[in-house]
Amino acid sequence: RGHEHARGHRQPERGDPEEIRYALLWKPPPALFDDLRYLEVIFSVGAGVDHLVACSTLPQGVPVVRMVEPVLTAGMVEYVVFNVIRFHRRMDEYERQQKSGDWQVLLQARADEITVGIMGLGVLGQAAASILTDMNYRLVGWSRTRKKIPGVQRFAGRSELPDFLSESQILVILLPFGADTRHIISRKAFCLLPSGAFIINAGRGGLVDENDLLSALASGQVAGAALDVFQEEPLSLDSPFWTIPNVLVCSHSAGTSDHENERITDIFCENLRRYLAGEPLLNMLDTATMY
Amino acid sequence: RGHEHARGHRQPERGDPEEIRYALLWKPPPALFDDLRYLEVIFSVGAGVDHLVACSTLPQGVPVVRMVEPVLTAGMVEYVVFNVIRFHRRMDEYERQQKSGDWQVLLQARADEITVGIMGLGVLGQAAASILTDMNYRLVGWSRTRKKIPGVQRFAGRSELPDFLSESQILVILLPFGADTRHIISRKAFCLLPSGAFIINAGRGGLVDENDLLSALASGQVAGAALDVFQEEPLSLDSPFWTIPNVLVCSHSAGTSDHENERITDIFCENLRRYLAGEPLLNMLDTATMY
Repeated sequence: RGHEHARGHRQPERGDPEEIRYALLWKPPPALFDDLRYLEVIFSVGAGVDHLVACSTLPQGVPVVRMVEPVLTAGMVEYVVFNVIRFHRRMDEYERQQKSGDWQVLLQARADEITVGIMGLGVLGQAAASILTDMNYRLVGWSRTRKKIPGVQRFAGRSELPDFLSESQILVILLPFGADTRHIISRKAFCLLPSGAFIINAGRGGLVDENDLLSALASGQVAGAALDVFQEEPLSLDSPFWTIPNVLVCSHSAGTSDHENERITDIFCENLRRYLAGEPLLNMLDTATMY
Repeated sequence: RGHEHARGHRQPERGDPEEIRYALLWKPPPALFDDLRYLEVIFSVGAGVDHLVACSTLPQGVPVVRMVEPVLTAGMVEYVVFNVIRFHRRMDEYERQQKSGDWQVLLQARADEITVGIMGLGVLGQAAASILTDMNYRLVGWSRTRKKIPGVQRFAGRSELPDFLSESQILVILLPFGADTRHIISRKAFCLLPSGAFIINAGRGGLVDENDLLSALASGQVAGAALDVFQEEPLSLDSPFWTIPNVLVCSHSAGTSDHENERITDIFCENLRRYLAGEPLLNMLDTATMY
C-alpha cells in the first residue's frame, strides 16, 4: 500500500500502528513511520534505497533490506549491454546515416580494443561484467572497497578513481546514490576520461553533474551518453537532454520490477521466514556504508 | 589484389598464370580464372562464399576454403545481440518517445519470455546463441541438417521449418545464400511467425523476399526489422527500407573483416601450411551442400 500512497505524499491507511512489525515499501511519505514503535524490519521493493535512507523520519536502528531480484538485474544487464554495443559499434552513427540515405561501412574496433569501465561492482555491476567479458570487451571496475572479480581489473576508493577513469572509454555508472557519491562524475571526471568517451548512467541522476555533462557533450570530450536516470524525474520537457543528438534518453526503465510483484513477494517472504527463524537476512543494508 | 580489381570487373594483374597455385580472393571477376590451369586451392577472404560459388568460371574440382575468422564472428554476434535486446527492450519505442519528449515506462517482458529463432547454426549462429542463452533468452534453432547445441531446441530441414517459425518471436537470419535458400523467408514464412515478430537479417539480402517483407511490415505481421543485407547493395536511395520507421538499416557492416588483413593472412598461412603438409584444411566448403 505504501507504494501507491507515497506518490501523493499522504499518510497511507496503515491499520493499527502498534500491530506493524514489518514494512514492505518503496518511497515512504515521511508520515508513514509515525507511531510505528514496534517496527522490526524495513523491506525495500527496489534495489536502490537512497530515497529511503534520505527519509528524515526513517527509524534509527531498524534494519533495512534491499530488494535484489533477478529480473531487475537481468533488465539492467540488457540495458548496459545494449548501450555498450551501441556505442562500440557506432549504431548511433548508422542511424544518422540511415536518415540521410547514406551507405557507408564505418571503421570498426574489435571488442578487445574497447575498455568498459564499470562503477559499482555489486550484483548489477558483476552481472553486466560477466556478459561483457564473454563478449571479449576489456573490463575495468571501480568500487569503494576492493573486490575480486574474474577478468576485471579492479580499482578501489577515491585515490584510484582517476586511474580508473583514464582507462574507461565507455563508462557505465551503476553506483548507489548517497552523500558520498553525489556528483561523483563531474567536470573533473569528464576531463580524466579518454577523449570521446561514452557515458551510460543506469544508477541515479544525482551521481552525475548534469550541467558538466552537457558541457562535456558540447565540447566532444564526451561523445555520447545513454541516460536512464536524471536529477529530476520525469525529465522536464525543456531539458536539453531530450534533443541532443548523441544522447539516448530512457525513462528510468533500465531495470524495472514493478510488474514482478509475485517475485518480489516471494523474495520478501523468504527473507521474513529467515528473520522469524533467526537466520541472517539476505541483502541487508550496511548502515555504515549505506550499501 | 583480386579484391580491389573485382570492383571494376577488370582482369587483375596476375603475373604468369602458369605459376599460380593458390588464390586468395573476395569477389572474382569472371576472367580471373582464365588459364589458371595449375590452381590447387581457392581461399575466400569472407565467410559467405555465395558470390564465389555463383561465378560461372569457377574451376570445377578445385577446393574452396571459407574464411572463418574470430573478429568477423564477434562482430556478427554483437550485431545480433544488439538488435535482439533492441526489439525485446522496445528501444525503438523509447527512441520515438524521446523525439516527442514523452516519459513513459513501457511494459517489459522478461528475456525468458522471448523466443529467439536462429536460422543457420554454423560458427556464427552458435556464437550468437551462446551469448543469448547466457542472457536467459529462450532459443530455438533451424538448420538444414540436425545439430546439437546446448540449451537450443533444434529444428532441421524444410519439414520442420513451419514449427520453428511459429515459435520465433525474434527471427535471426544467418543462413548461407544459395539456390536452395533464396527467398526462404517470404510471405508464407511471415504468416507462420507469431504476430508482431521481429526480423534480424545479417545473412544475405536474397534470403528474404523484400516485397513480402515490406507487406508484412505494412500489415504489422512483422513489427520491425534490422537489416544489414539487401537484394541490391548498396541499397538504392529510393528503397522504402531507408524510411520505414520500424526498420534499422546497416550497410552490410554487421561483421566486417576488411580491416583485419593481418589476421586473415595468418589464417590463410596456417591453412596453406596444412595443405603443404598434407593435413586437412580448416573450413573447407562442402561442395555438395555449398556450406
